[in-house]
Amino acid sequence: MRRVAILGSTGSIGRQTLDVISQHPDLLQVVGLAANRSSDLLREQAQRFGVKRLALLAGGDAGIPSGMDAVVDVATAPDVDVVVVSVAGVIGLIPILAAIKAGKDIALASKEVLVAAGEVVMPLVRQHGVQLTPIDSEHSAVFQCLQGSHSAPLEIILTASGGPFRGKKRHELEQVTVEQALAHPTWRMGGKITIDSATLMNKALEVIEARWLFDVPIERVSAVIHPQSIIHSMVRFADGSVLAQMGWPNMRLPIQYALLYPERVPNALKPWNPLDTPNLSFEPIDEEVFPAIRIAREAMAMGGTAATAFNAANEEAANGFLAGRVGFLEISRVVEETMRSVPVVEPTLNNILQVDAEARRIVNSEL
Amino acid sequence: MRRVAILGSTGSIGRQTLDVISQHPDLLQVVGLAANRSSDLLREQAQRFGVKRLALLAGGDAGIPSGMDAVVDVATAPDVDVVVVSVAGVIGLIPILAAIKAGKDIALASKEVLVAAGEVVMPLVRQHGVQLTPIDSEHSAVFQCLQGSHSAPLEIILTASGGPFRGKKRHELEQVTVEQALAHPTWRMGGKITIDSATLMNKALEVIEARWLFDVPIERVSAVIHPQSIIHSMVRFADGSVLAQMGWPNMRLPIQYALLYPERVPNALKPWNPLDTPNLSFEPIDEEVFPAIRIAREAMAMGGTAATAFNAANEEAANGFLAGRVGFLEISRVVEETMRSVPVVEPTLNNILQVDAEARRIVNSEL
Repeated sequence: MRRVAILGSTGSIGRQTLDVISQHPDLLQVVGLAANRSSDLLREQAQRFGVKRLALLAGGDAGIPSGMDAVVDVATAPDVDVVVVSVAGVIGLIPILAAIKAGKDIALASKEVLVAAGEVVMPLVRQHGVQLTPIDSEHSAVFQCLQGSHSAPLEIILTASGGPFRGKKRHELEQVTVEQALAHPTWRMGGKITIDSATLMNKALEVIEARWLFDVPIERVSAVIHPQSIIHSMVRFADGSVLAQMGWPNMRLPIQYALLYPERVPNALKPWNPLDTPNLSFEPIDEEVFPAIRIAREAMAMGGTAATAFNAANEEAANGFLAGRVGFLEISRVVEETMRSVPVVEPTLNNILQVDAEARRIVNSEL
Repeated sequence: MRRVAILGSTGSIGRQTLDVISQHPDLLQVVGLAANRSSDLLREQAQRFGVKRLALLAGGDAGIPSGMDAVVDVATAPDVDVVVVSVAGVIGLIPILAAIKAGKDIALASKEVLVAAGEVVMPLVRQHGVQLTPIDSEHSAVFQCLQGSHSAPLEIILTASGGPFRGKKRHELEQVTVEQALAHPTWRMGGKITIDSATLMNKALEVIEARWLFDVPIERVSAVIHPQSIIHSMVRFADGSVLAQMGWPNMRLPIQYALLYPERVPNALKPWNPLDTPNLSFEPIDEEVFPAIRIAREAMAMGGTAATAFNAANEEAANGFLAGRVGFLEISRVVEETMRSVPVVEPTLNNILQVDAEARRIVNSEL
């Protein structure tokens, strides 16, 4: 029996995590739940799963402990085996570091944490000997392909659905509405991540995440458009052989794998069969329309806290687009300019939090 | 340094194995070579690789030991670490059993051995604790996907190019010539195996081979047409997740993997990239035109030596087609009828050899 704490239980991944847990009551048990503001849903989840330890990060609610310390308490309680980190953005960094230091395994859905602070998080994971399993479908695919490998991957090839604007030219995207950007062709996700999917910032964040998670130089991480979202990512090994992980786009599979790793357990998910999707295809990414991955590579080349600024600027720019304060094509320009304007410093926890705040301030002062 | 003996060194797989070995002189060394009749090429190979221990199975040649005992000597010599079995047909059974008993690892390209005698070979592999690595591209793919797995595969999905007659109807195949059947769209292979590829008997043999090699019920082994031959096969795990192995169709990769397993070593093979083949597809197998897998399942349901008779009848029928003695569509009819007419007995080594001979006699008396 693995005892699970969920940070971000009221979001899309959090709710699906509870769904997975409810399918495996003999193997998984929820012992802690934390949310940002949604106190009603949090209470409902607590009642349904019999969870006593709750926290709200931002919302004040009589009877539920609130603030970052309360969230850290949920993540580090003695009876927790694994912490699901599915909070939106870099805010997950503080409880994740506390959980690692407390010896908890981490199931990570918040790619922003590794993008902003991979250089802080990964050494700590190794130092404390905890297991960090990815919940992102792409990184779960890579993680699955790497099981039993005796050599480092030569190349990681992430797949991207291409989002709602695949194949479009720049001039076609000048008047894009929020509604159009939220209409993702294959995945149902939260708002910010769906915008990231439309700009391919999501893939850019994943390229950096893969660099840290699998300890490969960023030059060895690439991405390719695969509109059907069946091949979730690929790994090339030293001998040239490529392994791929495939299935319907459904987060419940990577969530279950991350929680029960290394065991694979039957479930009620619809199995994918090759004849269900008789045609699979690949397309190159048009970097002129979608410069996100190029900017991510520039961030990694800048080093230090540049990726922190990149990530923070993107969070604010995506939210700015959702709020109607910036045009779709402006998102990547704002991210790139902000990243270049924030001084690069050594990526310590304090510097990361300061750079994160500074990049957000710059974006919001401009929008 | 792994010391390799090759049974069938003058055939297609044998020659490619020598090519792989020549690329890795620091890791692999040939110490024994056996062929059927091609004494000139065998001598040339021996000189090129400095090999002293040679054998010819059927051909008499002054100075080269001949007969089955000589082949067994090559396979079981004290300095041999791994025996590549790439002889055509069930004839490889005797030296393979001798090699296993002598504690040699086996790299197996002769699928017929497991089809005819899986029930004899696999327990012996386990009893002697030797490593049996597959050289077939499909089984190598499955073997690679299974590395590091903590649970048995739920399903093995073999891919098939479909051969030169993919999509054809029965009436279109009545007048097929040997030349047409030998024109394989994606793989360059020997004659008998190319005919097996055209009838899909190759896939039927592979379904049975997979059943033994990976210890799964045959109901959990299926096949799907994948004309591009890029996805070499797939494995579905207990949680529904599917892993696939991908790459150009080139036997040198599975050969290298089988010889150097579990290590993956760089090589000069052209790496496959998704954008090299932007469209991948799957099609169902038309069992009316290609009844091979149905007959194979019937053989396994009959049990005992039925698969031995199935395999032997197919070898003779395919050779009969190559010799112009039987029509293309008649191959599967001859195989099915022969399989049903040979009494099923317990699959001991002696019975297997007798059933094998009897099935061949029946086919040849009819053609």
